[in-house]
Amino acid sequence: MEPRFPPALHQELKNRFAERYSTAQAVREHHGKDESPYDPMLPDAVVFVRTTQEIIELVHACEHYRVPLIPYGAGSSIEGHLLALQGGISIDMSQMNQVLAVNAEDLTATVQAGVTRKQLNQELKSSGLFFPIDPGADATLGGMTATRASGTNAVRYGTMRENVLGLTVVTAQGKVVQTSRRAKKSSAGYDLTRLFVGSEGTLGIITEVTVKLYPQPEAISGATVHFPTVADAVNTVITTIQLGIPIARAELLDSTTLRAINAYSKTQLPEQPTLFLEFHGSPASVEEQAQTVQQIAQEHQGAEFQWATQPEQRSKLWQARHDAYFAALQLKPGCRSVTTDVCVPISRLAEVIETTRQLLSGSSLPAPLFGHVGDGNFHCAILVDPNNAAELAEAERLNEAIVKTALEHDGTCTGEHGVGLHKMAFLAQEHGSDMLDLMRAIKQAFDPLGILNPGKIVSPA
Amino acid sequence: MEPRFPPALHQELKNRFAERYSTAQAVREHHGKDESPYDPMLPDAVVFVRTTQEIIELVHACEHYRVPLIPYGAGSSIEGHLLALQGGISIDMSQMNQVLAVNAEDLTATVQAGVTRKQLNQELKSSGLFFPIDPGADATLGGMTATRASGTNAVRYGTMRENVLGLTVVTAQGKVVQTSRRAKKSSAGYDLTRLFVGSEGTLGIITEVTVKLYPQPEAISGATVHFPTVADAVNTVITTIQLGIPIARAELLDSTTLRAINAYSKTQLPEQPTLFLEFHGSPASVEEQAQTVQQIAQEHQGAEFQWATQPEQRSKLWQARHDAYFAALQLKPGCRSVTTDVCVPISRLAEVIETTRQLLSGSSLPAPLFGHVGDGNFHCAILVDPNNAAELAEAERLNEAIVKTALEHDGTCTGEHGVGLHKMAFLAQEHGSDMLDLMRAIKQAFDPLGILNPGKIVSPA
Repeated sequence: MEPRFPPALHQELKNRFAERYSTAQAVREHHGKDESPYDPMLPDAVVFVRTTQEIIELVHACEHYRVPLIPYGAGSSIEGHLLALQGGISIDMSQMNQVLAVNAEDLTATVQAGVTRKQLNQELKSSGLFFPIDPGADATLGGMTATRASGTNAVRYGTMRENVLGLTVVTAQGKVVQTSRRAKKSSAGYDLTRLFVGSEGTLGIITEVTVKLYPQPEAISGATVHFPTVADAVNTVITTIQLGIPIARAELLDSTTLRAINAYSKTQLPEQPTLFLEFHGSPASVEEQAQTVQQIAQEHQGAEFQWATQPEQRSKLWQARHDAYFAALQLKPGCRSVTTDVCVPISRLAEVIETTRQLLSGSSLPAPLFGHVGDGNFHCAILVDPNNAAELAEAERLNEAIVKTALEHDGTCTGEHGVGLHKMAFLAQEHGSDMLDLMRAIKQAFDPLGILNPGKIVSPA
Repeated sequence: MEPRFPPALHQELKNRFAERYSTAQAVREHHGKDESPYDPMLPDAVVFVRTTQEIIELVHACEHYRVPLIPYGAGSSIEGHLLALQGGISIDMSQMNQVLAVNAEDLTATVQAGVTRKQLNQELKSSGLFFPIDPGADATLGGMTATRASGTNAVRYGTMRENVLGLTVVTAQGKVVQTSRRAKKSSAGYDLTRLFVGSEGTLGIITEVTVKLYPQPEAISGATVHFPTVADAVNTVITTIQLGIPIARAELLDSTTLRAINAYSKTQLPEQPTLFLEFHGSPASVEEQAQTVQQIAQEHQGAEFQWATQPEQRSKLWQARHDAYFAALQLKPGCRSVTTDVCVPISRLAEVIETTRQLLSGSSLPAPLFGHVGDGNFHCAILVDPNNAAELAEAERLNEAIVKTALEHDGTCTGEHGVGLHKMAFLAQEHGSDMLDLMRAIKQAFDPLGILNPGKIVSPA
């Protein structure tokens, strides 16, 4: 199929990229959707790039023809980030997948944006180091940077905000900038690294990422513990955090999620509110942390503390946790998920989760609840038949009500999934219109032609 | 004395602020200088503000008359940030000194920008919490935010970059924005919090700061240890960091600095390269960390490990460290300091410090060397007679050579002091002109009239 965009551009890219330029329907469909419940919106073409230089050429071509560009990592974003609202070119980063440098002495690695988190950790294995940020999917480091992703380890190690040290970015003018040196800290001007982290492809195209690494902990201990109520589980985590215990992972899964996981991962975990915990440190420190948290859990009716000290047991446990979203989808064949992502101060978490559960209990839609409660962040995967308008509307109504509750409790509409299309309407509620004007001013300053992932985060004035 | 700026504005501000508006020479002199070696450049007037609303009024007035505004905290900045290059109004924040909220359960505090770090910790004392960031001076939280400050604890707790959760800012248009809710993480749009952190008054006027707090450690242990050479001390720290030991403070002081401290603080520390160390954690963890580091130090010829376990001993130790800069100034009566602030990846630290020492040894100017070597960051206080042009030129030549060395080793020209006037020339070397163009684009987008601390960080295109 011929793309809608200028035939001259089509010809130019075909000549330049040959078989790495595609307008095939299947390829466009693959690149015009993500894990959001939206119907696909296809790009006109897909280019599989290999170098920063190729991206510069693409930007210059698209600048000339005013054609949108949307960077594509693993396609695992959740809020419609990748949808080609105005057509254009999807830049597939999967062939930019080299780990460029591991500076073990400095605890840093520099990777091309298409490297995935699992690939990086695989390549780090012999170094004694690891990269902690772990969204559910095996996302690319470029995509994780662009959405300011986090995951189960963020309670201890922070999010991409804290763990990106510097970026190589191609600007909307086709310039290449390196946002920072590898020094651990710097106060050399405006923090463009942090500005590009979370910019969702709207301010520049991230081609290389330098991240912090951590020594693999001397000792690791994992555990599951079950509770009669979600509130008991949440209160266990709140107390743990408030005591300053450096817990590495503190994940809540409700009974519906456990049911989904048991079916999907062939586990036999009790189908009741459960915490998945992990402790990192020296053997003495891990022992100390684990004992303290066990005691806190017991004070909140936690039972059946099961330890996973062997690497295989722990891998199985965390793989099951990472698969929770995919497991949830299996609860309702053919469904898609409207996934909420609110995050609130931890003192407000118990009441926000309680209100959320009341909201969900008034709906017929299944909605497993799970998340990173150590950070005050949790998700509901509200499962809908994508062809059923009433279900979609119901899910959006629930999402709105949950966001409203979070905002009323000093929280954010999105803890780690980003804005994309799906959260744009909430940004004004969260930040106010003057903040949005500042964001628009940045977008306008960086991308005056509006060719970088247009229509995401903030709409033009 | 009548101000140079519009008489109508003078009258307006005099009517509005009465005795909190001053054009007195002494007041203007006090607000037209900082700890940099520059000659003072006086603002035309100083306003002592009490509320965000008053700042809005000031901005509207200055917008109307195109008159510069420079926020003033404690006057302890080091790079000429406060100098009124184009005259205008210094906004003295010292009366906005209320701790607005301590949310102990969430480990956050919200303060007015004029609160100082010592004041905040004093008010936190009974809460069991503390705020770790500690530049040498008793700076204000607003100023620390504006310069992206750090200090001795950053190796463990991060800098202002990691510890500011949200800000209230008055924009150049006189709008008030809150950059973030109090949730621990968020991916709700561009990270304006991090953009204002380190913006040095050039993008907006920070009026309130929400910061992270930490539980006072259950156990704390401090120590000094002496080494035959600076290299031995540095290598002790490098090994400690690379092993992932969560050391809370790891400060290097060279023998000249020790001599200055002994004279200034009436201590009797051996005048040789010394590490000041501190360990935070549970009693078991502190014990474990301290033993490991002691062993590492011994492998690098560290001797006379002296422990300071009592709070009074530790306070004295760290007060002496914080006073190092002021102690250094006493080495040369009437001097001022050209203070370097490079930061490099820790694998490069030993050679950069060695090169720096060679550069300094070729000069007749005294230049005590000290700093946060756990972060790869160190300072030389190059002491000059401010009336001696040859000494000033020599100090700048040394500073340039040290910056050049740092940049050649993947470092930054400024780890924590900011750009101000003094580092502007280095920014292009560090970042390249395309990065500076992006910074200029942000400045232009936020402050098109150029009234916010003009002439700092980046000059207009």
